[in-house]
Amino acid sequence: LATIRADGRPANRTLSFRGFLHESHRLMFVADARSHEAVELIGSPWADACWYFPVTHEQFRIGGPTTLIGERIREPNLGAVHKDCWRELSDGARLTYALSAPGEPRNSRVPFPTDGPDLTTPLPHFCVIVLEPREVDHLEINGKPQNRWRFSCDSHGRWSAVEVNP
Amino acid sequence: LATIRADGRPANRTLSFRGFLHESHRLMFVADARSHEAVELIGSPWADACWYFPVTHEQFRIGGPTTLIGERIREPNLGAVHKDCWRELSDGARLTYALSAPGEPRNSRVPFPTDGPDLTTPLPHFCVIVLEPREVDHLEINGKPQNRWRFSCDSHGRWSAVEVNP
Repeated sequence: LATIRADGRPANRTLSFRGFLHESHRLMFVADARSHEAVELIGSPWADACWYFPVTHEQFRIGGPTTLIGERIREPNLGAVHKDCWRELSDGARLTYALSAPGEPRNSRVPFPTDGPDLTTPLPHFCVIVLEPREVDHLEINGKPQNRWRFSCDSHGRWSAVEVNP
Repeated sequence: LATIRADGRPANRTLSFRGFLHESHRLMFVADARSHEAVELIGSPWADACWYFPVTHEQFRIGGPTTLIGERIREPNLGAVHKDCWRELSDGARLTYALSAPGEPRNSRVPFPTDGPDLTTPLPHFCVIVLEPREVDHLEINGKPQNRWRFSCDSHGRWSAVEVNP
């Protein structure tokens, strides 16, 4: 997921896909609210996900605005999503939210906690990133020579597609 | 590789790693000079590569300025690199440089060429992207819970490392 830093430079990292929000086309990821990606998305919500499928040799580039669902969201539907994503994390992933702020110098005198946090109550810094696709670039590398389409969504939510040169 | 579009939004795509320039730590990729990535890098040279190694569960995020080596570069060393990268492409990859501009609407009446371009002479739009690492973020996901280091290079080329929270 590519984002923009406060100084205007790009940032990029691998995130695990956590499913679609409410069976819509909106993609979910999780993040620590103290992480660079969360802070960057609050400042510049538009993100670009690049997802490469090595078996089928397809690439999807998915751009759009993001929303962060954190502990202060009180909409009932989103609260359930927040809890569901927390429950579905591995123990190791949940544990990272009990540590000091990501990216800060590690203090070796502070031992890492080893007990997994409670399954039912997300820790305060846990948040869900929701990416709303507005532009999709789909590349089939196995084509002859390659096939590529660009899909875009207008302000009324209508999608259009155009085949483009690879 | 994440870049910045002219409108300030992030762009992201998968590129194949084409080796290190002159056995330095500079990474090489190839691109069509008419592609969005090449145009974006000319406007905003700083890029951020995210490279995930699924077998070892390690992630490297490599940020730094980029240089494009195209047909107008006349430095002998870089000219050889340009030709070497061209020669090492697959036939299918070389063929894409003989097509119409990437990302433009595809004209189905123009048949794709099927003869591979000459091995020894790069086509005019072929260029090599050289990324000079200045910041590296290395994450070991298999640590307990995870291990992460941040490396950075100062203006004198001296590297320093700090262990940070995952």
